[in-house]
Amino acid sequence: MAAIALVLAGCASEPLRGTGDLGVVIERASGSVQVVETTGQKAISRIEGLGDLSHASLVYSRDGRYAYVFGRDGGLTKVDLLKGSIVNRVIQAGNSIGGAISQDGRWVAAQNYTPGGVKIFNADTLELVADIPATYGEQGARAKVVGLADAPGNRFVWSLFEAGEIWVADVTDPRTPKVDKFRNIGREPYDGLVTPNGRYYLAGLFGEDGLAMLDLWYPERGVKRVLDGYGKGTEKMPVYKMPHLRGWAVAGRYAYLPAIGRNEVLMLDMETWQEAGRIPVGGQPVFVMARPDGRQIWVNFAFPDNSHVDIIDAEARRVVKRLEPGKTVLHMEFTPRGEAVWISARDDNRVVVYDTVTFARKVELKAEAPSGIFFTSRAARTGF
Amino acid sequence: MAAIALVLAGCASEPLRGTGDLGVVIERASGSVQVVETTGQKAISRIEGLGDLSHASLVYSRDGRYAYVFGRDGGLTKVDLLKGSIVNRVIQAGNSIGGAISQDGRWVAAQNYTPGGVKIFNADTLELVADIPATYGEQGARAKVVGLADAPGNRFVWSLFEAGEIWVADVTDPRTPKVDKFRNIGREPYDGLVTPNGRYYLAGLFGEDGLAMLDLWYPERGVKRVLDGYGKGTEKMPVYKMPHLRGWAVAGRYAYLPAIGRNEVLMLDMETWQEAGRIPVGGQPVFVMARPDGRQIWVNFAFPDNSHVDIIDAEARRVVKRLEPGKTVLHMEFTPRGEAVWISARDDNRVVVYDTVTFARKVELKAEAPSGIFFTSRAARTGF
Repeated sequence: MAAIALVLAGCASEPLRGTGDLGVVIERASGSVQVVETTGQKAISRIEGLGDLSHASLVYSRDGRYAYVFGRDGGLTKVDLLKGSIVNRVIQAGNSIGGAISQDGRWVAAQNYTPGGVKIFNADTLELVADIPATYGEQGARAKVVGLADAPGNRFVWSLFEAGEIWVADVTDPRTPKVDKFRNIGREPYDGLVTPNGRYYLAGLFGEDGLAMLDLWYPERGVKRVLDGYGKGTEKMPVYKMPHLRGWAVAGRYAYLPAIGRNEVLMLDMETWQEAGRIPVGGQPVFVMARPDGRQIWVNFAFPDNSHVDIIDAEARRVVKRLEPGKTVLHMEFTPRGEAVWISARDDNRVVVYDTVTFARKVELKAEAPSGIFFTSRAARTGF
Repeated sequence: MAAIALVLAGCASEPLRGTGDLGVVIERASGSVQVVETTGQKAISRIEGLGDLSHASLVYSRDGRYAYVFGRDGGLTKVDLLKGSIVNRVIQAGNSIGGAISQDGRWVAAQNYTPGGVKIFNADTLELVADIPATYGEQGARAKVVGLADAPGNRFVWSLFEAGEIWVADVTDPRTPKVDKFRNIGREPYDGLVTPNGRYYLAGLFGEDGLAMLDLWYPERGVKRVLDGYGKGTEKMPVYKMPHLRGWAVAGRYAYLPAIGRNEVLMLDMETWQEAGRIPVGGQPVFVMARPDGRQIWVNFAFPDNSHVDIIDAEARRVVKRLEPGKTVLHMEFTPRGEAVWISARDDNRVVVYDTVTFARKVELKAEAPSGIFFTSRAARTGF
């Protein structure tokens, strides 16, 4: 009987489930994450031991089973969503804030502040395969790397904050990445995004008003400035929190972008590369995210406006609704077909799920100081 | 010992795996499907007993675990990709060719030729919840239903072939669907597509040259004709095989559409709704599918040109490459980030996987008379 009990215990396994409706919620104060599922709108498990997640983001393996979590302490943790456990963890830098996974899913890249640079790892084993210091200028200083994203052709693109540069690396042979460097692209790029079709890399500038644009189909054409001087003639407010460009900022021909130091969302026409308009909003935007059908743009804000979310009607180009999910809204994530959105309210220790049509609150889930929310559908998308 | 062996046998379970990189290949002559995975580019299992799959398509549950296969014999089979087995199967019509799944994943709709109409099922249990006959005209005849797709707002959209109508059903309460009917939209709509953002429904017409377009954001504006009379002044060839609109036909602002009875792909500008050009190709197109980044458009053809595939460069607007995967190319499917494409060659009993940049053949998989290939990333997309 004892033997049978032992065998039964040994073969107790997780129930089979799909991974397409899963997600991860970062719990920033406790070094833990929750695995959630969006069909039943429930939490499945909590995984601890991920170190300093006070700023963290993640990418998914192409099968949606594993999350690669990049933590503030330079930790890179591979997490198994099905087993609810850590598979592997390396400390790969002193200070890191994010990363990307290659188009074919074989390589994970981490963007590091300290030491400034990009490291590339085997997605299966987390073996380090390349280390690309973000050196610039005559002294060989190292810049903080920001805005790292994947692009088609097994490339990674990123920006160097202090250097004002954009680099594009072809990792077809990751042990010898081919890196193209674009210099003098603008002052202090603070984040970047790759458009959903993988064609354009847009870096937001912090040191001046404008964005730098690189056409990845024709990199030989160099980097162009867009929305140059968008703040001219108006006074800039102090910036309490750096906005973020990652997420659904693109809907159709427009990119919706946070203005720096202004209570505005900028509309960039990506055919003409001209400003198409600007939308007044209730605070300095941090995340500007389009509902998957592009009909609404949802915006959260920096302190002290960080307990509400404004919803812009894309055609009307104005805010039509305000929601109050709770204290300190840090992030939002749409389900892939857009029927629901999950919003974290850090200081109310909850995640609120809204219906994106009726704006009804469907569910509230307890979470410890939640910040980023990431669904596995990102695995199938470029630039996420 | 016998007891332990029994217990061990009972707890043998499928290894855990993600579902994000899975797919299904229809084997049209043997009522079977193969479950495949695109990371290792391998087959995992074969599932038999799906009836007549001589024309078949499928949609996925939102978690990517289950496929709902619509077969020619009116069968609707729910298949578990992880267990490699049939969960449930109903014969719901005399003759059916496809279906869709609602935005929230709760309802599966089948489009039927005989009896003409749409039936809606609970996605978990396959319980029938609604039966919507495609009746039209004064005699109450029933039309064949074609071009059924899901749209945001928990809607389904479809066309009635003989009637020349487009219907939109809101299934928020699926037992009492609210159906709007648009009449006189054109002669013999043969298929339809919903654009990736879920905004426009386009029905291709067989009885005349043109397409019918419905703006699902403003259905009150009615159906508009686009590309009207595109074949005027030229002679139409006999059509051996009806083209198909389902798939990645949209890239950026353009829809790439098969011309009926002509060796051409039409480019439709979806901002102006004017023809943007036409691209000569090597046969009458059946499937016209954009690589996910929109940089290439891949086309297969009707008999007698059905053993090659033409690749269009989207910017150059001309064919730049021809591939010969094998005899009788029936379908193609891109991996979600576009690095590979899987192509079925029915009469060579194989599926060929190509690198979409180098056009190298990566792998050939044996398959019995393969036709449709569908990857689970469709679960996260509208209109698929």
